[in-house]
Amino acid sequence: MTAAGFGLANLPYGIFRRAGEPPRAGVRFGDGVLDLAALVADGLLDDPAGAFARPALNAFMAQGPAAWAATRERVQRLLSGVDAEPRLIALDDVELLLPFAVADYVDFWSSLHHAENSGRIFRPGADPPLPPSWRYMPIGYHGRSATVVVSGTPVRRPRGQSRPDRDGPPVYGPSAKLDVELELGFVVGTPSALGEPVPVERALDHVFGVVLLNDWSARDLQAFESQPLGPFLGKSFATSISPWVTPMAALVPFRATPATAQEPAPAAYLREEPWALDVALEIELNGEPIARTNARHLYWSVAQQIAHLTVNGACLRTGDLLGSGTISGPERAERGSLLELSWNGSEPLPLMGGGERRFLEDGDEVVLRGVAGDGDGAVALADVCGRIVGA
Amino acid sequence: MTAAGFGLANLPYGIFRRAGEPPRAGVRFGDGVLDLAALVADGLLDDPAGAFARPALNAFMAQGPAAWAATRERVQRLLSGVDAEPRLIALDDVELLLPFAVADYVDFWSSLHHAENSGRIFRPGADPPLPPSWRYMPIGYHGRSATVVVSGTPVRRPRGQSRPDRDGPPVYGPSAKLDVELELGFVVGTPSALGEPVPVERALDHVFGVVLLNDWSARDLQAFESQPLGPFLGKSFATSISPWVTPMAALVPFRATPATAQEPAPAAYLREEPWALDVALEIELNGEPIARTNARHLYWSVAQQIAHLTVNGACLRTGDLLGSGTISGPERAERGSLLELSWNGSEPLPLMGGGERRFLEDGDEVVLRGVAGDGDGAVALADVCGRIVGA
Repeated sequence: MTAAGFGLANLPYGIFRRAGEPPRAGVRFGDGVLDLAALVADGLLDDPAGAFARPALNAFMAQGPAAWAATRERVQRLLSGVDAEPRLIALDDVELLLPFAVADYVDFWSSLHHAENSGRIFRPGADPPLPPSWRYMPIGYHGRSATVVVSGTPVRRPRGQSRPDRDGPPVYGPSAKLDVELELGFVVGTPSALGEPVPVERALDHVFGVVLLNDWSARDLQAFESQPLGPFLGKSFATSISPWVTPMAALVPFRATPATAQEPAPAAYLREEPWALDVALEIELNGEPIARTNARHLYWSVAQQIAHLTVNGACLRTGDLLGSGTISGPERAERGSLLELSWNGSEPLPLMGGGERRFLEDGDEVVLRGVAGDGDGAVALADVCGRIVGA
Repeated sequence: MTAAGFGLANLPYGIFRRAGEPPRAGVRFGDGVLDLAALVADGLLDDPAGAFARPALNAFMAQGPAAWAATRERVQRLLSGVDAEPRLIALDDVELLLPFAVADYVDFWSSLHHAENSGRIFRPGADPPLPPSWRYMPIGYHGRSATVVVSGTPVRRPRGQSRPDRDGPPVYGPSAKLDVELELGFVVGTPSALGEPVPVERALDHVFGVVLLNDWSARDLQAFESQPLGPFLGKSFATSISPWVTPMAALVPFRATPATAQEPAPAAYLREEPWALDVALEIELNGEPIARTNARHLYWSVAQQIAHLTVNGACLRTGDLLGSGTISGPERAERGSLLELSWNGSEPLPLMGGGERRFLEDGDEVVLRGVAGDGDGAVALADVCGRIVGA
């Protein structure tokens, strides 16, 4: 594991366990873990609610921006050696668990190039490839919270029904089109009230932090089942996220102009100064980078996603996970899924290590990486990895 | 409130609160509530885990069929006066809360007539009206768990984007097509393991009980947003369920032949002896029944839904809520939504009390009712009511 991107500018939160001890909250610093519950016990950190001694970050996440800022400042001082020299536990000596209990998981579809590519592939007759609503609202759907897993969890190839012959009956069996989706995941801290929409300009107050997210997808299952109610079994078998949640505060310096301007101008409830996060992203397959893109290719911001999600009165809960949708840029090498990289298998992706890929094979290991900035000020999102095991 | 259908044959579980006391578990008997935590305190009921003193039924639900059967038998003996004469609290003296914490909420689409009707309405060019997958699998989608509310919670008319003129730009405002959906909701008790499909013949071991469910829907929002990822804001603002969960054990005597045979025969993982629940259902609008149907019109069983939901390796959690989908029969008066009853507003429904309805108006109150059998052996599902308040 590398320490680059995990300096004082990042300080992501996670849940770790040492052999024989209960899980608790920690902060990653370099290749070490700062034990927050131990700091509290030593009188070095305030935690009246006992949030850091729990097996999930939710209680801390619910406390809101002022509490997050106070803890972050205190941890930064401690790790700068200003107040004390806290001990770090080696990353290799801990097990990393799912950092928070997921409330509702919503997956958006907010990258223009990905939406156009998947429209061309899944609905070849459709012209234009975007559905009529796409430029008016951040489209999304609810996913399965139960199957959000932490990086490192093996992913079993799902079984289900697909229809390889468009005119024939469906067949049942292991998915033949297992895929990755490279996404950011935004983690909700502060809840909102039922019936009260969150204004777009207040939306970021609710966002605790960011993870990388692999929305594993079985394209053949998805293609057969999705009309008219959307993806179900093709997505619900596993969604992997980073074990460390990078605070939004760490990413504020990396706000940038989105790669694509919003046209037409969105409805008033979605209107804000355009912004995106300048985070370089990469998909690695068996150690070889196969795609490089950037979160600036997201057309809709998470603030707009939250304003949209709640405009009908739906509430946010602590632990809600908002996937950005697959992030793709305009070039082939910038596509965030094998569906796009191999154009649904019709243009196999040659691998430098030999061979080629249409979709994932058993034994394949996928790692998602992300980093904002460089040098000492770099902020990395923690890798998300997963290995495919046979059905 | 009526006691009919709440005799010894039913004994549904809920969570109630008396002024100044913490919420706890109870069983409804007639017009009274049996306080389970008080029975435990009096030594009349076993509860080593303290499950009945909690504000949600989940801990009890997780214990599985043997524990459910033992508690049910014990409560039946107590209420028969065999062992003691427990006191009942008058229903009017308690507040009823959401009976369990909802884990994942999945809404299926398992009534043939409803699926055909909605296909004809939403996709008028589609011939046949059913999508190709419908007769091969129980199609469903994930809904928003955060907004599942207990009967009696007011429902605020949602705002959002719709496109009244199919060729024009969308407009933002209160939904003009607010609707009800009459469904059963199956409540998962025993969880299952990630990566291990639940065989159809074991699926009912996981089902704790049944509620009525009103899947409130904003048809105009839904129509604009649903392609290709399915319903989102059109459904996510509120889903109302009964305050009492009728145990599956109470409904076993009402297993019946489904109204429609499955043709073609389903895949092996979905194959079982065909069955449905013979539960008479009704929608009441402002005190007037506007539709009467029966759960026998469900084409797919909850066992098949569970087998399908998990065949890709997805797991069940305690508290999962599985909506059946709107239940409609072949006749107009048997349609489980205003969308169908008024054919998307084109055939207004005349009301006996005067006037007519295309969709719901502010101030309208909707009650869903359900009962299996009659006389002393009748088993009622607890009413689900909700009143529309303006946007």
